[in-house]
Amino acid sequence: MTQKKQRGQLIVLSGPSGVGKSTVIAELLSERPDIYFSVSFTTRKPRVGEADGVNYYFVSKETFEEMIARDEFLEHARYVDNYYGTSLKLIREKLEEGTDVLLDIEVQGAAKVREKCPDAVLIFIVPPSFEELSRRLHGRHTDDEEVIQGRLQKAREEWKEIPNYDYLVVNDKVPTAAGEIMAILTAEGCRTKYRTELMEGV
Amino acid sequence: MTQKKQRGQLIVLSGPSGVGKSTVIAELLSERPDIYFSVSFTTRKPRVGEADGVNYYFVSKETFEEMIARDEFLEHARYVDNYYGTSLKLIREKLEEGTDVLLDIEVQGAAKVREKCPDAVLIFIVPPSFEELSRRLHGRHTDDEEVIQGRLQKAREEWKEIPNYDYLVVNDKVPTAAGEIMAILTAEGCRTKYRTELMEGV
Repeated sequence: MTQKKQRGQLIVLSGPSGVGKSTVIAELLSERPDIYFSVSFTTRKPRVGEADGVNYYFVSKETFEEMIARDEFLEHARYVDNYYGTSLKLIREKLEEGTDVLLDIEVQGAAKVREKCPDAVLIFIVPPSFEELSRRLHGRHTDDEEVIQGRLQKAREEWKEIPNYDYLVVNDKVPTAAGEIMAILTAEGCRTKYRTELMEGV
Repeated sequence: MTQKKQRGQLIVLSGPSGVGKSTVIAELLSERPDIYFSVSFTTRKPRVGEADGVNYYFVSKETFEEMIARDEFLEHARYVDNYYGTSLKLIREKLEEGTDVLLDIEVQGAAKVREKCPDAVLIFIVPPSFEELSRRLHGRHTDDEEVIQGRLQKAREEWKEIPNYDYLVVNDKVPTAAGEIMAILTAEGCRTKYRTELMEGV
């Protein structure tokens, strides 16, 4: 029963715009700095304050299409005129060295990850209520009413994809939500299917 | 998405003699006094220091057999001349009121629980190594060599049943093991299948 190093876990977080996902992720990463937060590739131009390798890896359309051709993405999508994608190579390296990898992607991307990596842990973050989500979106003062209504509509559509997720975390209080995600990671690491692989000499 | 009260979880703990299961359970219950630790029924006589309703519910053979006839047990078994069993009625009441219920039972009993309650969470506690288990059994100074060898042999047999368990917890340090069990309970409570039942008004 000597223990070998356990493979890292692939964790996918999704949730509607305004649910406070980035705050929960920041809290999670401050408690668990050993987790690698996957940075996506994009062809869109960096906004003010965004840095290459931090917010995104900013690449040209040509580079991105070459990466698609070489099947280098775990998942990728095109929105308006820009590509967004998650590099499989980087993630695979991290997982193999035993590092947990966190992806922040939307529901279609999560479904693709599930196909390619059945062992991925899919977590959906929900607000305590739609009223609260609406309150949070209005409270940001960044979007006009039409954009907010669009986001609420999208949240209702994404809701139908929830059965594809393993876990639902309610973001009422950020530390509780982050704590539940940490508990999920600990529990997943205790799964018999992983731990028995590590046991020898019985 | 108003939350209704979540149903309690049925948690089954098994593990070889000498693994330190009762110490882990004591630690767990001191951290989570809200968990109901299920007391078994038995027809064996109480030993010195054992109290009815604490260590076991001590009942007559006649009473036990009437309970079997009324299908009142979640699982029961006969060892040598005595019956041991877990009352389904008590557990069901606790689960319905939203209380988590912990059972400490051996592998055959756990398999029966799995059949009757597919949602039960099955956790197997293992020692860091068989050498360590042997050391712990010798360190107790309560059993002679033959008994210890029998327990080690039984541990190796129980090992084959591990794939029936959802989680494997290594009892190296008691607080770590108890912490992992608490994380498992938190994570299981976040499962989409339970939480979506609680969501309304979408």
